[in-house]
Amino acid sequence: MSGIIDFRLRPPLGGFLTTIMFREKERTMRRIRQLSLEPPPSLLELSVEKLFREMDDAGVAMGVVTGRNTGSRFGTVTNEEVAAIAARNPGRFVACGGVNPVDTAAALREVDRIAGEWRMPAISMEPGFAPEPMRANDRRLYPIYERCAERGLAVILTLSLMTGPDVSYCLPVDVDQVAHDFPALPLVIAHACWPWVQPILGVAFRRTNVYLSPDIYAINLPGRDDFALAARTYLQDRFLFGSGYPFAPVGGAVEAYRALGFSGEVADKIFRRNAVGLLRLGDA
Amino acid sequence: MSGIIDFRLRPPLGGFLTTIMFREKERTMRRIRQLSLEPPPSLLELSVEKLFREMDDAGVAMGVVTGRNTGSRFGTVTNEEVAAIAARNPGRFVACGGVNPVDTAAALREVDRIAGEWRMPAISMEPGFAPEPMRANDRRLYPIYERCAERGLAVILTLSLMTGPDVSYCLPVDVDQVAHDFPALPLVIAHACWPWVQPILGVAFRRTNVYLSPDIYAINLPGRDDFALAARTYLQDRFLFGSGYPFAPVGGAVEAYRALGFSGEVADKIFRRNAVGLLRLGDA
Amino acid sequence: MSGIIDFRLRPPLGGFLTTIMFREKERTMRRIRQLSLEPPPSLLELSVEKLFREMDDAGVAMGVVTGRNTGSRFGTVTNEEVAAIAARNPGRFVACGGVNPVDTAAALREVDRIAGEWRMPAISMEPGFAPEPMRANDRRLYPIYERCAERGLAVILTLSLMTGPDVSYCLPVDVDQVAHDFPALPLVIAHACWPWVQPILGVAFRRTNVYLSPDIYAINLPGRDDFALAARTYLQDRFLFGSGYPFAPVGGAVEAYRALGFSGEVADKIFRRNAVGLLRLGDA
Repeated sequence: MSGIIDFRLRPPLGGFLTTIMFREKERTMRRIRQLSLEPPPSLLELSVEKLFREMDDAGVAMGVVTGRNTGSRFGTVTNEEVAAIAARNPGRFVACGGVNPVDTAAALREVDRIAGEWRMPAISMEPGFAPEPMRANDRRLYPIYERCAERGLAVILTLSLMTGPDVSYCLPVDVDQVAHDFPALPLVIAHACWPWVQPILGVAFRRTNVYLSPDIYAINLPGRDDFALAARTYLQDRFLFGSGYPFAPVGGAVEAYRALGFSGEVADKIFRRNAVGLLRLGDA
Repeated sequence: MSGIIDFRLRPPLGGFLTTIMFREKERTMRRIRQLSLEPPPSLLELSVEKLFREMDDAGVAMGVVTGRNTGSRFGTVTNEEVAAIAARNPGRFVACGGVNPVDTAAALREVDRIAGEWRMPAISMEPGFAPEPMRANDRRLYPIYERCAERGLAVILTLSLMTGPDVSYCLPVDVDQVAHDFPALPLVIAHACWPWVQPILGVAFRRTNVYLSPDIYAINLPGRDDFALAARTYLQDRFLFGSGYPFAPVGGAVEAYRALGFSGEVADKIFRRNAVGLLRLGDA
Repeated sequence: MSGIIDFRLRPPLGGFLTTIMFREKERTMRRIRQLSLEPPPSLLELSVEKLFREMDDAGVAMGVVTGRNTGSRFGTVTNEEVAAIAARNPGRFVACGGVNPVDTAAALREVDRIAGEWRMPAISMEPGFAPEPMRANDRRLYPIYERCAERGLAVILTLSLMTGPDVSYCLPVDVDQVAHDFPALPLVIAHACWPWVQPILGVAFRRTNVYLSPDIYAINLPGRDDFALAARTYLQDRFLFGSGYPFAPVGGAVEAYRALGFSGEVADKIFRRNAVGLLRLGDA
């Protein structure tokens, strides 16, 4: 395979159209403009064909799509559905399973299906969106982390000031503890605990099973230069490009990440190779 | 009106001369030098005429003066007095009311006078200076926030490492919670929770009723570039210039803020227009 | 005296060879490469002669060596031994005493010997490495702080994400409280509470008895530019160069600190004069 892998992209398809990001398009457009970017045609027209063209224009080969099952106003996309979306659009998407941590037994069964039935490489959890919001080191998540470690799945945690009641639900110390307790479990932190930029970069310095994928939070936002310095140096094997689409246009996100100043080989790692390794895309 | 509005300025007049900043002039001069600036003649001579000249030279039309009533060594300036100072110097000052949150019933009566009798646009509180220091999300402040929301007053909270026993009394999460609980209440954070720069910029990204006025804490101090990036982009409508005079000379503060790199329209917002809107100066 | 003073340097000699940093050389080399630097010959060969040559080449006259007695896997170097190392290599090292805070009575006796018998200028503590890890404001440390203040000793606290179970054992608020409670006690924060860069720079802005010696954590790591801005301005009298050797080569560390942009007099303070004053080297 070749081309950029976008670690966070939700296409305007199926269940994704029922999530808040497409349902409340004006809100999403305001969020894009906060990043000093313009909403792309694919969002304005909710057109997946336009999205594919925007991906092609930006050199983005594939997007990572994850199930989302928070039981909340954010909407639901089942794992069956993301598997089907990936199957119906060969070479365009990598499907990962969403897991709702509220019911532990059901979550463990879902992890087993994700690993066994769908053979997906990772699960995604958004613990701050639970009806009773959880932090990443909540004890109720520990059986799920344990099972993922057993089954060889990576865990994607979405953690930022937007994924919980307030900015105390995305503390880097929570990631620090989980990474310590499961040293063999790859933890990808989507949103990268923003705005706790310097602390999470410290945690990722110490814990070599922590990967950061800040997606929109490295685009024209405070802390950008701290992310860039780490990604160019000690974090170059664990930093992952993501657009956060539809919260940023794919092309604008690629440009913003290029502006962080990555050289040839480092750029290849961040835009592609790190994701290939983590998602085991070379096996396929 | 035209010219710069300085969101935090205490003239060497009346009760202000009894506050620690003029009473302990050497201490204030040390603080100015920490910013790599020099004390201005108006401070050395405690001369309001010199201050007016320094304002004119820097293009500063008006300064926001607030009552201060902490019952502490920091000194007291009554709201009657700031109203009189503004009245006696037409076009020079915008008076806002200081509220001491320790006695809730008295504070609510004072809020009513500030809104009704003096028709001021905002109140100021410094909860960390209370005899028993409070954080911004202290439950005892909630009736006051509620009353301000009812009366259409903005709330100025002074929050930084200097306004409390230690750096845990200015946490951005406290602002996050208050801004969430009173979404229609404009909250101006003087000192901008410094040194929690990246976290407060995150809170202000999410909470669109939060305004930042870092005053001296955006002058030659760490975090300056993070403030600048936010102020040039998503925070341009909610970032307010303030000198913090006498802790910085007015002219030096204007220069330091200009050095943050604001373009034409953004500069106009930050130096003037945002304050006009927030303080309803266009109504007058 | 003249030449650079390196505030954190552990030579490959005596008990230091039993500590984890030399015993697990591969681990140390990985850490050096995280900083985008290369391991020096003195580490590869565990040669103190090579180290002296590297110091000479980098213009480093003396290194501060401290006893380490954490009762943990990090290894032990007694104070007798650091005193002997300094005595056997005249003009190369400044010896400071390591104190294990776990047994308060023994710690106080050791402080008395450090001040009285060995006439060392400072003690070093690493409270996060205790069997039951402590934070810097742990009440069990207070008798030791008190005794150091009485005896005129500075206290070196090693605080960073690496010196405790997680990133909550190096919080700047802990330093804030200790510095407030012992205003006459010089506190040198080795590792500078990294990655809490902006908050510790705030604490050091307020507490003028706090000195920062980030050692490796100002070398090519996030927060570097915040450190640099503070060190060039308000912190220029309380910022101390340290290589953290063997976790960085001495020469590479000097170059990285020079790249922070210090001018003539400020450079002299940071590389030499601040250490001379703090360690009372002018008295000798």
